[in-house]
Amino acid sequence: MATNPTQTPTLLRASAAALEPPTYDDVLAAADRLAPIIGPTPLLRSRALDARVGGRIFLKAECLQYTGSFKFRGAYNRLAQLDEGERQAGVVAFSSGNHAQGVAAASALLGMKSVIVMPRDAPAAKIDATRGYGAEVVLYDRWTESREAIAGAIASERGATLVPPFDDPRIIAGQGTVGLEIGRQAERFGEELDAVYVPASGGGLIAGVALALAEDSPGTAIYVAEPAGFDDHRCSLEAGHRVENAPGATSICDALLAPTPGEITFEINCRLLAGGVAVSDDEVKRAVAYAARTLKIVLEPGGAAALAALLAGKIDAQGKAVALVLSGGNMDPALLAECVRAYPEP
Amino acid sequence: MATNPTQTPTLLRASAAALEPPTYDDVLAAADRLAPIIGPTPLLRSRALDARVGGRIFLKAECLQYTGSFKFRGAYNRLAQLDEGERQAGVVAFSSGNHAQGVAAASALLGMKSVIVMPRDAPAAKIDATRGYGAEVVLYDRWTESREAIAGAIASERGATLVPPFDDPRIIAGQGTVGLEIGRQAERFGEELDAVYVPASGGGLIAGVALALAEDSPGTAIYVAEPAGFDDHRCSLEAGHRVENAPGATSICDALLAPTPGEITFEINCRLLAGGVAVSDDEVKRAVAYAARTLKIVLEPGGAAALAALLAGKIDAQGKAVALVLSGGNMDPALLAECVRAYPEP
Repeated sequence: MATNPTQTPTLLRASAAALEPPTYDDVLAAADRLAPIIGPTPLLRSRALDARVGGRIFLKAECLQYTGSFKFRGAYNRLAQLDEGERQAGVVAFSSGNHAQGVAAASALLGMKSVIVMPRDAPAAKIDATRGYGAEVVLYDRWTESREAIAGAIASERGATLVPPFDDPRIIAGQGTVGLEIGRQAERFGEELDAVYVPASGGGLIAGVALALAEDSPGTAIYVAEPAGFDDHRCSLEAGHRVENAPGATSICDALLAPTPGEITFEINCRLLAGGVAVSDDEVKRAVAYAARTLKIVLEPGGAAALAALLAGKIDAQGKAVALVLSGGNMDPALLAECVRAYPEP
Repeated sequence: MATNPTQTPTLLRASAAALEPPTYDDVLAAADRLAPIIGPTPLLRSRALDARVGGRIFLKAECLQYTGSFKFRGAYNRLAQLDEGERQAGVVAFSSGNHAQGVAAASALLGMKSVIVMPRDAPAAKIDATRGYGAEVVLYDRWTESREAIAGAIASERGATLVPPFDDPRIIAGQGTVGLEIGRQAERFGEELDAVYVPASGGGLIAGVALALAEDSPGTAIYVAEPAGFDDHRCSLEAGHRVENAPGATSICDALLAPTPGEITFEINCRLLAGGVAVSDDEVKRAVAYAARTLKIVLEPGGAAALAALLAGKIDAQGKAVALVLSGGNMDPALLAECVRAYPEP
């Protein structure tokens, strides 16, 4: 049976009690848990970028986060709240990318075993990186096997806890620490942000960021940045309910391919987001090249979505203070080379 | 007449009074001048790198500095001390790379005209970037014309001030702010650094860093990282006097090709440095690839020299706290692509 590898993991829905959306206080508690483990990522400035768009742009460099993406924050916040018995039994997750590395690394730091179910055709670099963090990697065939079934079987066999990628209050609260940092760092620049643009797949990161900034910077509008054809958050916000992406779309943003917003994440996002923008593969590649050439940072396609929207003129930054979350940098070396070769000029 | 483009610019030697080496207080004053203009660059950590070398590594990311290298610091500190008349007449510099961009950008911020003499065959991206900062670029043929003569003629014709790349007390003091920041940022991590490795061409950056840390962190040993064949600082330290590189060597580290240490810089460096390491082109390319793949930052070859030494096992970091200055990120896109393609694996 062919399994859509980006399907929402209904199997991994948390228990009814855990379905309550997190609060601002949960984000603060997550920040306390993370403080001894990771420092804040830099909020970078670029005079060249400011001049190009006529505004004051603040770049939240989650590509510089441990494991190369924001995912570590939520994974660690989730795993740190397991009780002693749960820790003994370890955790299971499935992911071909950043969530895999986040869960593997958080487990190792907490002295727990982790099993990550990854597609056999995932990039060798990502499989190696996940193993490098100490995880046991179980490979599956994404065309003939169900990763949910495999992960579920491992979980029940070992009594291990399944760690969902986004639709979980503790994951959302962990990702929300990105928003706390943005608010505090912008303040140090003497700025109250007009807008923040955040990439979304299942919507955990943007939901957390929105929770944090609704409290700390209520005048800041939060927008989602998505690949064209996978702009389910934007469409859902317009429709007022969760809608699915039409089938058949493709995107190089491998981290942003969830077919529909999460239930818990959308409960937050439909209240707190102001709208969204969508970007093409070409716009993303140009942004990856711009980031390497001008900003001197490496972004993966999904991590460049908000920057792509800005560079493509889809964000009105004229005279405004705008933050972009650059959510990850786990880039395939060959694709990075392709982008910088294809777009060598500003 | 064929002109060695890396020749020490004797023409640009400052006046006798200005030849006094700068002091720690000069570095502090430079920091005060720069504070309203640029924030500190991040001192990055990488658990992956720490695990690989068995130490605690601190990465001073000057690739994230305005203009893409540390050069802006010295240029701004130099230009900000010109008097009103000198400012009116503007400045002249020659450089095919980072000094060009630093001087051009500093001039623009101070409302001054700048003329940068660049070789006609410099990468178009660097010429465009220099013009982008508002400089007038004068091109010359590096095989038939003397850049010193051209710059000198422009300077005397316009009454403009020549800005040397490194052998100037105010340039050295400006670069020294890198050292001040390293000391303070390491302290925030609760560390007293065992060693700092700094790339050198004429030696202005490392002299400034050494001045700052001799005061702020006297237990820290300062080492130079240079390309093999251009390790004139290492050889000069061993010889106890300034020696020249043997002719005929080549290196991809285009920012590190000065033939001999500066006079003022060596006066400082021969007192304060502990020694040096030299790296091959291949080691540098591997470091560029590692930086992009694992650290998610873009380094130019010269900016990767200290990292190259660490990754090649030429720095004993076992159990130690070691900072590396990653001095610049103005990388040719095609060479970046070549490095990440050639070394896709950790």
